[in-house]
Amino acid sequence: MLTDGVALTDHHCHGVVAADLDRPGFERLLSEGRRGSFDSALGLAVRRWCAPILDLEPHADPERYLARRAELGWREATTRLLRATGTTRWFLDTGFGGGRAEFAAVADGEVREIVRLEHLAEQVIAEVGTETMPFEDIETALRGRAGNAVGLKTIVAYRCGLDFPLTDTPPDTITLERRLTDPAILGWLVGLGARIGAEFGLPLQFHTGFGDTDLRLQHADPLLLTDFLRATAGAGSSVALLHCWPFHRNAAYLAHAFDHVRLDLGLTIPYVGQRATTVLAEALELAPFHSMLYSSDGCGLPELHYLGAVLWRRGLGRLLDEWIAEDIITTADAERLVTAVANGNATSTYRN
Amino acid sequence: MLTDGVALTDHHCHGVVAADLDRPGFERLLSEGRRGSFDSALGLAVRRWCAPILDLEPHADPERYLARRAELGWREATTRLLRATGTTRWFLDTGFGGGRAEFAAVADGEVREIVRLEHLAEQVIAEVGTETMPFEDIETALRGRAGNAVGLKTIVAYRCGLDFPLTDTPPDTITLERRLTDPAILGWLVGLGARIGAEFGLPLQFHTGFGDTDLRLQHADPLLLTDFLRATAGAGSSVALLHCWPFHRNAAYLAHAFDHVRLDLGLTIPYVGQRATTVLAEALELAPFHSMLYSSDGCGLPELHYLGAVLWRRGLGRLLDEWIAEDIITTADAERLVTAVANGNATSTYRN
Amino acid sequence: MLTDGVALTDHHCHGVVAADLDRPGFERLLSEGRRGSFDSALGLAVRRWCAPILDLEPHADPERYLARRAELGWREATTRLLRATGTTRWFLDTGFGGGRAEFAAVADGEVREIVRLEHLAEQVIAEVGTETMPFEDIETALRGRAGNAVGLKTIVAYRCGLDFPLTDTPPDTITLERRLTDPAILGWLVGLGARIGAEFGLPLQFHTGFGDTDLRLQHADPLLLTDFLRATAGAGSSVALLHCWPFHRNAAYLAHAFDHVRLDLGLTIPYVGQRATTVLAEALELAPFHSMLYSSDGCGLPELHYLGAVLWRRGLGRLLDEWIAEDIITTADAERLVTAVANGNATSTYRN
Repeated sequence: MLTDGVALTDHHCHGVVAADLDRPGFERLLSEGRRGSFDSALGLAVRRWCAPILDLEPHADPERYLARRAELGWREATTRLLRATGTTRWFLDTGFGGGRAEFAAVADGEVREIVRLEHLAEQVIAEVGTETMPFEDIETALRGRAGNAVGLKTIVAYRCGLDFPLTDTPPDTITLERRLTDPAILGWLVGLGARIGAEFGLPLQFHTGFGDTDLRLQHADPLLLTDFLRATAGAGSSVALLHCWPFHRNAAYLAHAFDHVRLDLGLTIPYVGQRATTVLAEALELAPFHSMLYSSDGCGLPELHYLGAVLWRRGLGRLLDEWIAEDIITTADAERLVTAVANGNATSTYRN
Repeated sequence: MLTDGVALTDHHCHGVVAADLDRPGFERLLSEGRRGSFDSALGLAVRRWCAPILDLEPHADPERYLARRAELGWREATTRLLRATGTTRWFLDTGFGGGRAEFAAVADGEVREIVRLEHLAEQVIAEVGTETMPFEDIETALRGRAGNAVGLKTIVAYRCGLDFPLTDTPPDTITLERRLTDPAILGWLVGLGARIGAEFGLPLQFHTGFGDTDLRLQHADPLLLTDFLRATAGAGSSVALLHCWPFHRNAAYLAHAFDHVRLDLGLTIPYVGQRATTVLAEALELAPFHSMLYSSDGCGLPELHYLGAVLWRRGLGRLLDEWIAEDIITTADAERLVTAVANGNATSTYRN
Repeated sequence: MLTDGVALTDHHCHGVVAADLDRPGFERLLSEGRRGSFDSALGLAVRRWCAPILDLEPHADPERYLARRAELGWREATTRLLRATGTTRWFLDTGFGGGRAEFAAVADGEVREIVRLEHLAEQVIAEVGTETMPFEDIETALRGRAGNAVGLKTIVAYRCGLDFPLTDTPPDTITLERRLTDPAILGWLVGLGARIGAEFGLPLQFHTGFGDTDLRLQHADPLLLTDFLRATAGAGSSVALLHCWPFHRNAAYLAHAFDHVRLDLGLTIPYVGQRATTVLAEALELAPFHSMLYSSDGCGLPELHYLGAVLWRRGLGRLLDEWIAEDIITTADAERLVTAVANGNATSTYRN
């Protein structure tokens, strides 16, 4: 397939668990809800695609798979799976799942940092407290991190939803919480991220679409960002909509409507297994080809990083094979499209 | 196909009209809007699949179909169609379309009752009035019915929408209405159903997704149940999301996120005809395999019960044939999946 | 294919730019966001399908395509593309993109007018001012235009969203604006359109679904029209939901639930290119066959009118070929379905 050898830039992923895992521990990580099981499209995909990387036959049963994984040890299994992705650049969200150095120790290729706004702000608040309004400290800390980062990220979708009140003015009061959930603070924080992103040339990633049980999925519909996107159009920074399922057609519309919007399907691809071809086709109905990025959103299990890559290659490869067979696109144009989504669009979007 | 012989548990259906029907009468029942016609995917499916059960060639035209149906008489036509489903257990929502005894008279297999909360509450209110707050009477009546039931059901989606205010406290006032529409009463009633369901081991079914013209479809999106599902997680009872289209991907997400959630496609399958394969595939993108149930939601016409079964068999069978051909799943795993959705998941969900 | 020769009624389109276009000018019109590019499904479709109409090989590159288009001149290119659609009747929304006479000068076939409510009201307000409440003037003007029109149209989705407050009473105050955005005025204006539509036998078209960046797409979900549809059911006029993507399943539900609702996929078809088959299939899951209309929503570029036609023919043709091959529909029924959607349903819906 056209996608077979192309080098990937995984523009959004997380670290892996640096430990051997028993079955409950492994299955917990097979789900965004942390209650996963092999009894799902994702579970089938692990057995089908990951087993051979660990020298097992395809469809090895879960016990056999985990026994072999333990036999190899987590480090060897991780190295094999990450290497098999064919990824040359990893942009790591260090706000969840471990830091850059740990990941670089097991992954080939360049590892760059994505700074998670909420994580950084909560760290600052934990350090300086809320007596003296910590908003300047947050801004200072973000500037300090921005210089070495490749992008910023917000999980405001989880906290108060994507219809946050965008503002340049920090609120008058702040309560000390373990997790920021106040819309007024979050609206200011996202605005800060957009401004500093524009200043440093850092795209701002938004979690959108499905995720763990902290989420009200209807508040993670990227359409709720329409006003934010109008406000930031022309400001010089890009906005990347992550994951998007089941709102990926909505995200494609936003990328069609706004020049500075990018999207990926992220964790959707490993989760939906065989259906990746269709989900990619739905996104490509309206998304301009220069707006599509690749990511695995792999987190915890290197199996997810690998499935992101193998199912993306297979899904897009089959789709383009079909388009070429039906004379909808030339092979040369299809090759350009593959390279763009695999790494070219990331290169032009992430300029640092 | 793998689905050919498997016995079905139809975990949500209704009775049939015990009378011969003329064309307007028949077509009214070919639609949730009660304005149906043969001029639809459903109409094509009746002619294609039901005609042979009545000894006609496939695609017999509507007049010919109805003439033959009248010739056989409704009872013989019903018996044939219900038998051809291959269903061994029927869970009947007795709040609409007739009771258990009537259905057992025409259907083979076990017939169990699903108690519809709003119907029961409205019966109690009609009997005892609203002078003395009837909430204890409703609870007493529900306990009386729960012992013989296999499950409970709510149509709150039709009445005030799925974003009802959940509460354990009955309201202070109540107005006598033919139909309960007060969100405060409905929020208490659904909460009562959840509590009594947990106590008696009865799953609580929710109408979600498309239905008749009483509905505002946007208020029937199962995502609106997110807070209810958080509140009932771990309480010991299951929640079954019925029908779900066009929100079946949202329902699949909820089943992924919450252990106690089940879903089916219900009346979607007969209505969408040839498209059942795709709709099932969309639901299986994220729904854990143990969360999928089978139902026909057949109501009024036994053609709907039959189409639910035949199109489910064909839809899932073709999907799994494709997955096996593409080496995505083993035949043994596919067989287990078929049995689970056909009846195994219902057995473990409905424990009474 | 069954759709090859059938005459089309394009029940909703716009005029074309009467000038030669350079690449930026052409690409601007390749997008609803007015920022389009050849780098999209739509761009591929122009190169694949339109190039041969201008005597080029399929997939001609953009520069070559535009050079040939300039060589022929816009008028010759337009004549060829519009003729190749096989359209015999065009219903032109004259509120955007030029009038009937200009279009009739380049298009074969009958050209009828669709009157856009907001455009007419804004013209009246610009003429008579707001000192004296202009509501009677608007009604008078609309009656004047209705006699020669084939239908009415509203873009309230763009202005305040489809959850406008329907009312028969004009508001007490009115502000002079270039564009009407006041929900109170718009709710009255749409109600006026429905009443005058019923009186003159003119269907009322609603923009729904995706469009340009003025839109908040979540406010263009046709489900938001549910109360309006209840209010107008039985009033004697039809309502046509245009475009609908990504809410086309929602629109299909409304057509299923309400007798007076029609829908098309409009500009969706040219934009989604190869995916037209699937999008049509999704709409036909629930939409009664008599409720589906054809339109291109072509605007600015005659390429869009042509792609609307060729991709609709190809999309529906392939879908029905598949259904016939799988014995889901007879060839005779499929032929009837094609004729109905191509022009028959428009004939029975638009009676003037």
